[in-house]
Amino acid sequence: MRQFNEDTLTDAVVARLKDTENPRFRQVMTSLVKHLHAFAREVGLTEEEWFEGIKFLTATGKMCDDKRQEFILLSDVLGLSMMVVALNHKTPPGATEATVLGPFFAHGAPEFESGADLRQGATMKGEDTYVTGRVLSTDGKPIPNAALDIWQAKADGIYDVQDPNAEFELRGRVKADAKGEFAFKSYKPKFYSVPDDGPVGELLRATGNHKMRPAHMHAIVSAPGYQQVITHVFVDGDPYLDSDAVFAVKDSLIGKYSKVDSPEEAKRLGMPNPFTKLEWDFRLAPESGVKARKTIAPSDAFA
Amino acid sequence: MRQFNEDTLTDAVVARLKDTENPRFRQVMTSLVKHLHAFAREVGLTEEEWFEGIKFLTATGKMCDDKRQEFILLSDVLGLSMMVVALNHKTPPGATEATVLGPFFAHGAPEFESGADLRQGATMKGEDTYVTGRVLSTDGKPIPNAALDIWQAKADGIYDVQDPNAEFELRGRVKADAKGEFAFKSYKPKFYSVPDDGPVGELLRATGNHKMRPAHMHAIVSAPGYQQVITHVFVDGDPYLDSDAVFAVKDSLIGKYSKVDSPEEAKRLGMPNPFTKLEWDFRLAPESGVKARKTIAPSDAFA
Repeated sequence: MRQFNEDTLTDAVVARLKDTENPRFRQVMTSLVKHLHAFAREVGLTEEEWFEGIKFLTATGKMCDDKRQEFILLSDVLGLSMMVVALNHKTPPGATEATVLGPFFAHGAPEFESGADLRQGATMKGEDTYVTGRVLSTDGKPIPNAALDIWQAKADGIYDVQDPNAEFELRGRVKADAKGEFAFKSYKPKFYSVPDDGPVGELLRATGNHKMRPAHMHAIVSAPGYQQVITHVFVDGDPYLDSDAVFAVKDSLIGKYSKVDSPEEAKRLGMPNPFTKLEWDFRLAPESGVKARKTIAPSDAFA
Repeated sequence: MRQFNEDTLTDAVVARLKDTENPRFRQVMTSLVKHLHAFAREVGLTEEEWFEGIKFLTATGKMCDDKRQEFILLSDVLGLSMMVVALNHKTPPGATEATVLGPFFAHGAPEFESGADLRQGATMKGEDTYVTGRVLSTDGKPIPNAALDIWQAKADGIYDVQDPNAEFELRGRVKADAKGEFAFKSYKPKFYSVPDDGPVGELLRATGNHKMRPAHMHAIVSAPGYQQVITHVFVDGDPYLDSDAVFAVKDSLIGKYSKVDSPEEAKRLGMPNPFTKLEWDFRLAPESGVKARKTIAPSDAFA
């Protein structure tokens, strides 16, 4: 095989995949090569543009470290992450919808009983918020002892893992109780900017896009026998709900953060008065009968 | 814009490109997003596979440094580099065909008059070879004073720039004379392996492909008023001509390296006897009337 031109080259490269041991890998690579070549042909990619692409990918790799995953961010802003979520998390009827994991999950977060205060040791203050709700199955029955991995950005719009001075902050694994109920204290999420000092920031500027994500709290909710859900709770009224830089907003995931002015309730819950309250239920589909949602180990991305 | 599913997401991401200032960049990004999403949909990309991709790209970026460009190598083995050559270098009738630049071009190589000995200071010996020929225009007329950037791997299959102990070796900018004639002394190229200790090596193994390139000498031939050509001369009879890891072989670029046993000729040329000889003419098309071939600055890849 030699003497390829733009019309024969793609088939030649695909033919070279014939000895791929894993048939699924062969399928994925075949599609990848075809689309990569089709892209280059469709736009008539010039050498200068190809080389800009090489430099962009190289810089994106160089930007990655144990705290920063620029390729996940790139996947996020190109809508690929959300596409993969859409392809893999068909929401079972009545279950909480999934959305992007994002690059800021961290293993080893502290574990708490329901009622925990995630503001403990916080380096920044925010709007005091009491989050409470239930973990339910899709038929409305409480699921006992579910685990909720919760994380969100600090008041300055960056996550604890991005901040060398922060330990785990506004982050923890909260256990729901035997009745499926959970509660924790945190701050009201604020909208923030994705990291924009790298190649992805350049890309956003070159395409005339802002870098903002609407305010949200992340949650991964897990219980034995149920499909895990990786999701967000967005804040109702946020100005960026319709232009999320990573395309992750779902109507069903927008929560109402309400102002509570009640000295009695504040006292009962151990909150200052007034305070903000979010009531939010998560609903999980049973594992049986459908393909289990597999979870990746996100922090491996920082290996 | 929110609430995207696998059917609506691609249009949403493309719509976000509407404010891209540069229309060509918008066109390229639109095609890229469409093909990226179509690839994910076509194979039903799983989260595990997506994450393997993220890790692969990250590792590829980490492998790049001032001596190694793993993304160019990746582009080479996926046939993308050769596709870009095919799209941008339609060979004018009668002109030397172009092929991949590869990642081992280096700026600042020593300049020589015709007759130069590129074996000077070589850290490894090879098969002594005398290369001679002419630089001609497509109508067969000699082009005076053309410049030939020449480089090739050493006998151990690696390039000088890959070897911390080597200076410029088997590499130089040779000037053709006023009659378009050039000559230089070097070693006969040998087939070699592309670097396989990184992610691209893993990819080659996973797809059951070897890592070899057929023996070749690189040349970039330039003359004022003519289209520059980036090309190779391959060695006739090489076992890898039909399975070049980077798909770069063209029939018209295979040269005959002949054994010469003639004490007189050896003496006249300043070669040992016997020696190997390659006679090779390069043919350049005039610049006028066609789009000039633009040259990228390859060593910028190592910035």
